[in-house]
Amino acid sequence: MTEPFRTTRRIEFADTDMAGIVHFANFFRFMEAAEVEFLRSRGLTVAMVWEGQRIGLPRVSASCDFISPATFQDVLDVAVRVQSIGKKSITYSFEFSKEGKPVAKGQVTSVCCKVAGDHHLESMEIPAGFRAKLEA
Amino acid sequence: MTEPFRTTRRIEFADTDMAGIVHFANFFRFMEAAEVEFLRSRGLTVAMVWEGQRIGLPRVSASCDFISPATFQDVLDVAVRVQSIGKKSITYSFEFSKEGKPVAKGQVTSVCCKVAGDHHLESMEIPAGFRAKLEA
Amino acid sequence: MTEPFRTTRRIEFADTDMAGIVHFANFFRFMEAAEVEFLRSRGLTVAMVWEGQRIGLPRVSASCDFISPATFQDVLDVAVRVQSIGKKSITYSFEFSKEGKPVAKGQVTSVCCKVAGDHHLESMEIPAGFRAKLEA
Amino acid sequence: MTEPFRTTRRIEFADTDMAGIVHFANFFRFMEAAEVEFLRSRGLTVAMVWEGQRIGLPRVSASCDFISPATFQDVLDVAVRVQSIGKKSITYSFEFSKEGKPVAKGQVTSVCCKVAGDHHLESMEIPAGFRAKLEA
Repeated sequence: MTEPFRTTRRIEFADTDMAGIVHFANFFRFMEAAEVEFLRSRGLTVAMVWEGQRIGLPRVSASCDFISPATFQDVLDVAVRVQSIGKKSITYSFEFSKEGKPVAKGQVTSVCCKVAGDHHLESMEIPAGFRAKLEA
Repeated sequence: MTEPFRTTRRIEFADTDMAGIVHFANFFRFMEAAEVEFLRSRGLTVAMVWEGQRIGLPRVSASCDFISPATFQDVLDVAVRVQSIGKKSITYSFEFSKEGKPVAKGQVTSVCCKVAGDHHLESMEIPAGFRAKLEA
Repeated sequence: MTEPFRTTRRIEFADTDMAGIVHFANFFRFMEAAEVEFLRSRGLTVAMVWEGQRIGLPRVSASCDFISPATFQDVLDVAVRVQSIGKKSITYSFEFSKEGKPVAKGQVTSVCCKVAGDHHLESMEIPAGFRAKLEA
Repeated sequence: MTEPFRTTRRIEFADTDMAGIVHFANFFRFMEAAEVEFLRSRGLTVAMVWEGQRIGLPRVSASCDFISPATFQDVLDVAVRVQSIGKKSITYSFEFSKEGKPVAKGQVTSVCCKVAGDHHLESMEIPAGFRAKLEA
């Protein structure tokens, strides 16, 4: 995937903290929302029934570097790239920028899981058809 | 219940917004946490199995008046009172104060529900034993 | 204002809770975001410099009734109405619906404040020009 | 610092998501809260006046590995270690566990900043006295 998937995010008042900037933990929510938008563009999502099996894609690792602050009402550009697809996991990278200037760069790894009964999660191979849509 | 249940809440950095004060929506999280602490003190909670039936207590209405701002590292006193118990619902009141000075006053109504299958909720009468613990 | 201001809100994964539905406190964030969007459509916002004076519009009261649950990926319609404008305060009503079916109804009152020095807030009359834009 | 600073964190209902577990972004809030508690134990905090200068400690990078899920009402043990102290920055590591079993491991780097005027941040050397308390 050479060209990233692109979306935007408008900063809300509740995203800010007393330092007057977006609270750093919110970038992880923003990454997840961008991941979901990317998946939606491929007809996928993070919690769905796939070929009769409930699957989920919980995050097993996440990181972010905060380069310059974002503030209330900024509209951030978000670029999502699939960095790698393993047997069971997907690693995404995210770049947030404002008018071309970098704001934050992050990475998230999600693992494909069967969801059984009451919230029980067990990792599984990414189904072939799901993978095909990711790689399309 | 003449004497309220009392707990405290320390304001975290992430609770604040760019106005330098606790973001108003967080008081609803604080009310829920205080409700859960009150219920725990009675051996109850908001999502549990009761006599073989999974029950939940989703909120059907919530309100709050914000009297004076709370800021980072404040330790708020929280007083929880059961205002009324209906057939299926419980109404709580909450008073937040700081060194005796009122900060916020709110009210929440939770309704007792059966939880079936995948997150299906259906209201039900509060079980007699549950009610007895609430009224104790 | 007979016709409401209308916007939409897509439910994100992080908005949900273990009951599988939008956590009730998030509706207060959604109301604020809709308030801000409404104000933006009038050239206003909740934290700005107006005629050389920094003003803010903190909420002094908020309430919401939760009618039917919203879930991940729902796109809610949000109708915002200015219910009343007092000397210093504005009361908004909000209706959330999904495919025409009511989801939640809420009300928020914001008060116009001077912001001085380090986050000091003091209520003030809504400036005439600000009011004119609100009533337009 | 060989022995970590230890605290606990009780999972609240609002911390969970529709997968029935703590939403991953909340661990970043938990790390910040534990950082603040550690600093408080040293007579420090993340937003304070130090020798007449307002200083802040915004995060410039954060990462977390999620090892096993945490659920509603779990009480997590949190171990905080100062990994390294640079000229201007502090790197902390965090270990979350439940009854001795690892739940998540993370790392956060905060940078010491002067806070000027309206939320302007500029990095600065960690003051000697602040550093002495950190290293104590």
